[in-house]
Amino acid sequence: MTSLSVFRDIPPAQKLEGSLLKIYRHDDYPSKMFLAYKVCMTEQGYPWISLVVRRTRLQISQDPSLNYEYLPRMGMKSFIQAALELLFGKHSQAIAEKRVGGVHTVGDSGAFQLGAQFLRMWRKNLKTVCIVSCQKEQYGLIFQDMGFTVYEYCIWNPKELCSDPTLFFDLMEHIPADSILVIGNIIDCRFTQTQWTNLMSIIKSKHIFPFFDVPCQGLSTGDLEEDTRLLQYFVLLGFEFFCSQSLSKSFGIYDEGVGILVVAALSNQDLLCVLSQLMNNVQALWGNPPATGARIITSILCNPALLVEWKQSIKSVVENVMLIKEKVKEKLRLLGTPGSWNHITEQSGTHGYLGLNYQQVEFLIKKKHIYVPKNSRINFTCINSRNIDYITQSIHEAVVITEG
Amino acid sequence: MTSLSVFRDIPPAQKLEGSLLKIYRHDDYPSKMFLAYKVCMTEQGYPWISLVVRRTRLQISQDPSLNYEYLPRMGMKSFIQAALELLFGKHSQAIAEKRVGGVHTVGDSGAFQLGAQFLRMWRKNLKTVCIVSCQKEQYGLIFQDMGFTVYEYCIWNPKELCSDPTLFFDLMEHIPADSILVIGNIIDCRFTQTQWTNLMSIIKSKHIFPFFDVPCQGLSTGDLEEDTRLLQYFVLLGFEFFCSQSLSKSFGIYDEGVGILVVAALSNQDLLCVLSQLMNNVQALWGNPPATGARIITSILCNPALLVEWKQSIKSVVENVMLIKEKVKEKLRLLGTPGSWNHITEQSGTHGYLGLNYQQVEFLIKKKHIYVPKNSRINFTCINSRNIDYITQSIHEAVVITEG
Repeated sequence: MTSLSVFRDIPPAQKLEGSLLKIYRHDDYPSKMFLAYKVCMTEQGYPWISLVVRRTRLQISQDPSLNYEYLPRMGMKSFIQAALELLFGKHSQAIAEKRVGGVHTVGDSGAFQLGAQFLRMWRKNLKTVCIVSCQKEQYGLIFQDMGFTVYEYCIWNPKELCSDPTLFFDLMEHIPADSILVIGNIIDCRFTQTQWTNLMSIIKSKHIFPFFDVPCQGLSTGDLEEDTRLLQYFVLLGFEFFCSQSLSKSFGIYDEGVGILVVAALSNQDLLCVLSQLMNNVQALWGNPPATGARIITSILCNPALLVEWKQSIKSVVENVMLIKEKVKEKLRLLGTPGSWNHITEQSGTHGYLGLNYQQVEFLIKKKHIYVPKNSRINFTCINSRNIDYITQSIHEAVVITEG
Repeated sequence: MTSLSVFRDIPPAQKLEGSLLKIYRHDDYPSKMFLAYKVCMTEQGYPWISLVVRRTRLQISQDPSLNYEYLPRMGMKSFIQAALELLFGKHSQAIAEKRVGGVHTVGDSGAFQLGAQFLRMWRKNLKTVCIVSCQKEQYGLIFQDMGFTVYEYCIWNPKELCSDPTLFFDLMEHIPADSILVIGNIIDCRFTQTQWTNLMSIIKSKHIFPFFDVPCQGLSTGDLEEDTRLLQYFVLLGFEFFCSQSLSKSFGIYDEGVGILVVAALSNQDLLCVLSQLMNNVQALWGNPPATGARIITSILCNPALLVEWKQSIKSVVENVMLIKEKVKEKLRLLGTPGSWNHITEQSGTHGYLGLNYQQVEFLIKKKHIYVPKNSRINFTCINSRNIDYITQSIHEAVVITEG
């Protein structure tokens, strides 16, 4: 056939992310290091998996009574129930009142895709979305592609080296009314009680629609309840919101992409209408969600013994992260690196800001082959006993050289 | 909070499908029967699963070397390669020329969603979609929601009781130029060589973009190659097209929703551009596809012994379907049911038309509690030795009563 190709003028897409990883992969230096993996790493340098997951997977695959029929479009009912109880607490009043519910979603982006489609269709007054800078690439583009105006915000104050409540307040002052506010981990923002009250009243008066992101419950503080306290506060006060609840990271089954779009409504009647509309979108998006990940997670959450074991494994991860951070700080102190490094241990979670400037990050990448994102936000689980000396020594040099 | 609910005026969605199943579930009659399940059923009335799948799943879950890191956005590379070889043949020239490729997708709808998004974005001249009636609900709405005009077509001739090539030609004559043509199973349409040649030339001259649907390779004829001969013909002639290749049904892992959006281009360069654009859509749709289903399927396709076993299990299913159809036909003959029932055995695959009219279907549902879709297209694997007599006797009565 000699006719013109249908695909003749399709340009190659611009790479959205992963460029740092790409440069890292092309680096021939034998001791190169990448400190920005999304997943939690073990001391041995492998992706972490909760051990109870392996056992549960094995058990499930030996169960002759299981059939592998399509899940309902809504997803696995027992999984949704267990996940909601994890998020809101077993004795949540909102669960008892049946005004919170969820749709089983796919991958890390599925819940945002589904929620954004719904809001575009049914809440046309919501035209703008505010999202934390580091999530812009991953989720901001979903909203942008649908015609929302997307603003980035950042609560990390690089001068003060802390998550800064005033930056969040600045945002709330300037955010247009009828905006969607994507709220990720703001646990490190230490709001006063007055600030909280003000925050709630701004959200209410400006008709801000909160869209929470809970990507790895438990891995911030090691305490499952503590990690979602903010969400529970919102539901208690009767706010309506969406929440992308991703469970893969908390169990170490990154490749299953198990999530839920959680809907908090004011009544069961409202909730059922929203869920039924979401079903139409699900039908078009993927049809029926995949089961394995959800089955593993449900088995663990619904079995008291396995649950204890999983909670313990989450706690160990977080304790280990804290230990790594303490060690990094101590080593920098012993090296006499200029500056206070308390901000390292003051941040919760696996990922945190080193608090380096662009020049220092460049030094680490180009001179030391240590790959750190521009904003210096690294995954602390990538640091282990084999590389910690080289990393801290390099940070020290970066700071000393650029200080001069 | 007393402010107005964000969700105050969301209406409940109209149920798109499943209404027959819903009525069936609400029927209290103890011997009710549902003959329209999507999945292949065993003689015992359970969803079929290839036995080699259970063993492979177990083996995978025992593999200590596996980590559960995110799959690349494109999906599992070895899975895509194995699936393409299954579709086009191991020694396909198009594979060797690297002008066919694929993106690992989610669920039954994922590949259509992804492909439709791409076509809407990059091929704005394609404004209409023609799709087989029985797929309208499942995939037609995906296109419709994106603003395409969707036409239904049907190649089943209810008078002649056959898949009718002239109906397909009528469609091709009347289809607007620059249409997307969703091509499902037209294996029962017995085109002559001249008809084929004409068909190809119409597709070419009218710039029709074929979007194949291969939902269950192997389960039409029992022969994997035979089932995709049409596709191979298109690729050999240098057509460009998309194909939704779903693998869940052929392995009996319906709940994993494993699929691929296959892209056939004219050159590797074109292909890479298309795939790179698709990656952006994937990022927004789900991020990274789930792995378990793909891992099971890849393990089977890449292991010669397991492959033989799987092929044999597919063949057994199809032989069993043929046997059921023969028995139904024979029983109707013995009952002296008016009409020829050859059309039952002339259709390939698990699903086929009984060739009943609306009145007869109504009789089966209302009087006999046998749930059959309006168009009388049933899943023959729902018929087994325990229910065949009741079903054939009921069909007999339906035909006799309405003949009168």
